[in-house]
Amino acid sequence: MGFTIQNALIPTDWGYDTVDVQIGGDRIIAIAPNLKPMGTIIDGRDKLLLPGFVNAHTHSSELWQRGIIPPRPLELWLADLYDFVPLDPEQIYLSAIGTAVETMLSGGTSVVDHLVLIPGREEETIAAAVRAYQDIGIRAFVAPLIQDESLMAGVPSGGKTMNPEPYLRSTAATLDLMRDTVRQFHRPDEGISVMVAPTGMQLCSDALFEGCVELSDRHHLCRHTHLLESRAQKLLAQEKYGCSAVEHLKRLGFLSPRTSLAHCVWLDDADISILVETCSTVVHNPLSNLRLGSGIAPILKYRQAGVNVTFGCDGSASNDSQDLLEAIKVGSILHNVTDMDYQHWITPREAIEMASLGGAKGLNLADHLGSLTIGKKADLVLYDLTSLSLLPRTDPIGLLVLGRPTQAVHSVWVDGKPIVSNGTMTTVDVDQLRQDLFDRSQWISHQSKTVQEIEAHYRSVMGLPQR
Amino acid sequence: MGFTIQNALIPTDWGYDTVDVQIGGDRIIAIAPNLKPMGTIIDGRDKLLLPGFVNAHTHSSELWQRGIIPPRPLELWLADLYDFVPLDPEQIYLSAIGTAVETMLSGGTSVVDHLVLIPGREEETIAAAVRAYQDIGIRAFVAPLIQDESLMAGVPSGGKTMNPEPYLRSTAATLDLMRDTVRQFHRPDEGISVMVAPTGMQLCSDALFEGCVELSDRHHLCRHTHLLESRAQKLLAQEKYGCSAVEHLKRLGFLSPRTSLAHCVWLDDADISILVETCSTVVHNPLSNLRLGSGIAPILKYRQAGVNVTFGCDGSASNDSQDLLEAIKVGSILHNVTDMDYQHWITPREAIEMASLGGAKGLNLADHLGSLTIGKKADLVLYDLTSLSLLPRTDPIGLLVLGRPTQAVHSVWVDGKPIVSNGTMTTVDVDQLRQDLFDRSQWISHQSKTVQEIEAHYRSVMGLPQR
Repeated sequence: MGFTIQNALIPTDWGYDTVDVQIGGDRIIAIAPNLKPMGTIIDGRDKLLLPGFVNAHTHSSELWQRGIIPPRPLELWLADLYDFVPLDPEQIYLSAIGTAVETMLSGGTSVVDHLVLIPGREEETIAAAVRAYQDIGIRAFVAPLIQDESLMAGVPSGGKTMNPEPYLRSTAATLDLMRDTVRQFHRPDEGISVMVAPTGMQLCSDALFEGCVELSDRHHLCRHTHLLESRAQKLLAQEKYGCSAVEHLKRLGFLSPRTSLAHCVWLDDADISILVETCSTVVHNPLSNLRLGSGIAPILKYRQAGVNVTFGCDGSASNDSQDLLEAIKVGSILHNVTDMDYQHWITPREAIEMASLGGAKGLNLADHLGSLTIGKKADLVLYDLTSLSLLPRTDPIGLLVLGRPTQAVHSVWVDGKPIVSNGTMTTVDVDQLRQDLFDRSQWISHQSKTVQEIEAHYRSVMGLPQR
Repeated sequence: MGFTIQNALIPTDWGYDTVDVQIGGDRIIAIAPNLKPMGTIIDGRDKLLLPGFVNAHTHSSELWQRGIIPPRPLELWLADLYDFVPLDPEQIYLSAIGTAVETMLSGGTSVVDHLVLIPGREEETIAAAVRAYQDIGIRAFVAPLIQDESLMAGVPSGGKTMNPEPYLRSTAATLDLMRDTVRQFHRPDEGISVMVAPTGMQLCSDALFEGCVELSDRHHLCRHTHLLESRAQKLLAQEKYGCSAVEHLKRLGFLSPRTSLAHCVWLDDADISILVETCSTVVHNPLSNLRLGSGIAPILKYRQAGVNVTFGCDGSASNDSQDLLEAIKVGSILHNVTDMDYQHWITPREAIEMASLGGAKGLNLADHLGSLTIGKKADLVLYDLTSLSLLPRTDPIGLLVLGRPTQAVHSVWVDGKPIVSNGTMTTVDVDQLRQDLFDRSQWISHQSKTVQEIEAHYRSVMGLPQR
């Protein structure tokens, strides 16, 4: 039957219009003032309707470790993370639900979960996350995080012989796992898409990248990877390939219009040209890049070169939240200090478009998602402009992006199905989720053994004084 | 009679303790496990008790302009701001209430309001803000924003003859206004302190600074000013004084242990030494500095040199929120990209101390505020650790600082008086506030006439290409 959102504000080229929006099935079927009411009526007065955003890079299970890892750079942070990684598929389910709830209550309707796999229980991990996303109803892109080299292979050697341990799973077994995953879980029409997602050049062989490209081509899967997040990775790429990581990924055929690249902090102008040429998408994770001291990604340069850029929260252990509006705000204003000319700065409207249409482009879905367009999917978010955090009334999108909206999301639909109504999740019992997260955790601090083992080498190769 | 908070978590040197905290009158009188219950009992289980933070630099009336000024640098942003400044004292009252509500719901118990005055209605402006802060019960430091030079005097001339218009009020009249303000409103024991607060070297004569120093010395008032917020101001100081602005302020006697300096983005090492020598406090406004493209203040250098640093939200038109936890998060992690050595990075615990004890120091009140210490004022905040945004349980302060807490403040007391209970403001009707802010505003965009007039000169003197 569908429904009609009446009298909502929507952005237009010249400002805002007050319109009715009709949804039939999973699609937007009409946008105009004073439409004949159809189906359920939603009161859109004093509310802003926008296309849903994409949380275009996260690792859901890091929710279990948020707030606890001390300030340290990526390579040491990773060592800490993996010393205390969750090992129970039921935890994976809960953290995927938690990640989806926070994403949706901050304007997201899609999530790219670069999912950390429990060793030996990989398929169960993926099944748990898929079940969570189906239960909650978010559009999910499940990207099992795969690698075939072990942690120390990801730290530059500085000329020292490192002999990292072999990784716990072979390249062939990993590609088999991915083939099974596609067969079992890739159901784009049901809101679950599988992506091929080698963790990054720092921990993956060429064979793994090539196997992923082949699988991606065969099943039209999107591709995803971390790219040059830290200065250490830039050093490592030179050690490993004798050229830039971007150039190497291009040679492997990994870059394409359906490839999204998380972080992209340490690219140079030649690398940027390759992104343009291959129509790859950059996923900007500003808070994580600050938290880990990775650097400030040259986002204004990407935009000026014509590279598609969208936003991610990154995992909750490196941010440590899943609030997309926070990522959009900081990911916009941060770059004002990188270019004196304010005519290059990202405006709130541009930021909104990056988060919605930019996200859709990165998933090769720009024809179906990311804007308020008749015929597109009804992945929609309605914001309550009478929230204290969005008052007094000025420019609704300015308030949403530059402010700090709280309790501002009134309704969310994915595929035309209601997920949030009147500020409340309809598909998940949030109080039960809080209880489950509380019961399975405790207030603790911890010491990572691996950090202690590798810290001296890290400081040496990065030119930092020894303690 | 007082009250007892039972079984609250508090931070200790070695982690956290669960204790009872007793408040008698306006003071903390006991902190220990299992105290004999006294007065009203507050259940502190699964809650974290911290000293209240100081929102150490804001301009409350900018609330009326939040979200609306496009991304542009300070000098042009100011032109836009002053074209649309609120002109009704009742607006001043409402925006002070709104500023205080957002500050308190994000952990603040004190606010420094660098208050923009309505021309010709200066005393009414100050009276309205004071009334608001008394009504809501926040500890307020009211710092009327005074100057004696007009807007264009604050933009470097680049050698061009500028002839800025004379300012609307003389230096003598401004100092008279301040004397009257002190007489009428300075009541520290009742929670309202007046500060002397020339807007900054860019818009103030030496005579105004000297008059403020004299007034400050006579009445033991704290001093406050903007300092080297933008690169343009650094250029201007050289044009105006032939030396750095910090050196000049030192010569004028403005710097002292009771002086706090907002922004401090463009200081060099010699300037930092002067801050150390004069025991001045830096108020870090990270979000505003990004939003206006002012730059990244060298906060880690300040801390290493021994300068006291605390946090401010800055006015809502340059942030555009009054969420102290957001300022603390971004103001901590931002600096991880400025120093490769993570041993210098600000930890969540250090950030909390900067926001509480650091704020108290900047107000010359470290003996009375800013820590959980027997005998200190009961300016306290109790956080609900069962908020979804603070789950699962890991390190409470890590979650609070590095996460994005929402609905996390359970209770707030100032001088032992309850202001927030169970997440709800007790002294202010927030729904009525929302209605008032709604009724007095409209969704609009606007064009600043002054920006159009001065933009070509600004671009020329800053070396930016003309459009």
